[in-house]
Amino acid sequence: MRILVTNDDGIDSHGILALVKSMRRLGDVIVVAPDRQQSAVGHALTVSSPLRATPFYRDGAMFGYAINGTPADCVKLAVSTLLDHRPDLVVSGINHGSNTSVNAIYSGTVSAATEGTLMGIPSMAVSVTTFDETHDMSLAADVAYTVASRLHSLNLPQGTLLNVNVPSVRAEDFKGIRVTRQGHSVWEDSYDRRKDPMGREYFWLTGTFVSVRELPDADDLVVAQGYAAVTPLHYELTNFAVQEQLKNVQW
Amino acid sequence: MRILVTNDDGIDSHGILALVKSMRRLGDVIVVAPDRQQSAVGHALTVSSPLRATPFYRDGAMFGYAINGTPADCVKLAVSTLLDHRPDLVVSGINHGSNTSVNAIYSGTVSAATEGTLMGIPSMAVSVTTFDETHDMSLAADVAYTVASRLHSLNLPQGTLLNVNVPSVRAEDFKGIRVTRQGHSVWEDSYDRRKDPMGREYFWLTGTFVSVRELPDADDLVVAQGYAAVTPLHYELTNFAVQEQLKNVQW
Repeated sequence: MRILVTNDDGIDSHGILALVKSMRRLGDVIVVAPDRQQSAVGHALTVSSPLRATPFYRDGAMFGYAINGTPADCVKLAVSTLLDHRPDLVVSGINHGSNTSVNAIYSGTVSAATEGTLMGIPSMAVSVTTFDETHDMSLAADVAYTVASRLHSLNLPQGTLLNVNVPSVRAEDFKGIRVTRQGHSVWEDSYDRRKDPMGREYFWLTGTFVSVRELPDADDLVVAQGYAAVTPLHYELTNFAVQEQLKNVQW
Repeated sequence: MRILVTNDDGIDSHGILALVKSMRRLGDVIVVAPDRQQSAVGHALTVSSPLRATPFYRDGAMFGYAINGTPADCVKLAVSTLLDHRPDLVVSGINHGSNTSVNAIYSGTVSAATEGTLMGIPSMAVSVTTFDETHDMSLAADVAYTVASRLHSLNLPQGTLLNVNVPSVRAEDFKGIRVTRQGHSVWEDSYDRRKDPMGREYFWLTGTFVSVRELPDADDLVVAQGYAAVTPLHYELTNFAVQEQLKNVQW
């Protein structure tokens, strides 16, 4: 099996190394990942500048290609152009920070898996619910292995990916894997207003994550309970109920 | 009525000026838009650098605030921080280039309207199917006016926006407005491989848009027939059928 691994934290991150090690238990791993941190890039593509693919080494060995672009760029460039063989799986992560609920739409990690499934390749994204750079990734890497080992045989429809979120708990407190839906929790936005040394105003995004706990199988709720959440996401964005309702409007 | 107008082509674009003029027929217009071209940014947010809001003038009059960020940044910053009053509508566009089918997921224009509806404000995106910078925007501006004038009373659920795509036809060839669904057309990606003057390889994204014409009410098909397409999009991304199927998996 050939596995394309990418992420949005950058090719030199802690999380992608843990993921590569666990994916090597499944098959041949090819890494094509951003050359720097790309968090919250959403499904961005680089259209106005050229991309470069630079060999990246770890401990003296070729680790993969670093791309001056987004996670979605990495998957498009790898599958269409860089790789000699089409991968059998696309696995993105392990992201620092959960991609549950509304976070999925801002997530570069998820966008890479979206790009993979749009190209017809079974794809998944893996995130862990902590921003701690020193966090032990072994539980998340094990969960990634378990899900990835079943992914090919699940025969997901083209356009549907698995979004996996792993709690940052000790192995003995981990409760197992559960199938979930995207939760309805949201961000309540705010910005810090500050003045620079020249007296000019600028704004830093802050905000509070507001947990909405109305759905018992919501990804963020289930992760908070100590489970790894596996949510099938797709990009059939039409709200069909509203489409029906709008057919009665006189424009 | 207070209308927040934004876009992804930049505050100095042709399309946003046409949109502002048509929205002024409906109420008070506030413009908060990117200070430069932001195409294909998807739902990106600026999290690692501060934002600035710079007054932007057109013909000697204050036109709006230019933001060094993405369309989604503009809406978040405007609604949460910059504006004294919450807007009644968020309208994004008029974008050069259609945002039908899969393009909606890459679109900064659509992401601004997504951000608006996630904040509970009736929101819409407007695009015209040409990249010609000199294209007469009056038909698209009229369609935007018609849809926006009904948008508030439609009582769309929070999280659902209207994605409006207008054909680049003469007014006499325009067939009217139709309610549509997101089509299934896709990009077949490719990259131009080139060498820079130093002999190093680089890649430009190209690609072919592959029309999938299986759905009679698909947005791209209907636009190609000379109608303006109005598609209700939402971000309930769970594939519920697959969720059911996955519940039988032994992890």
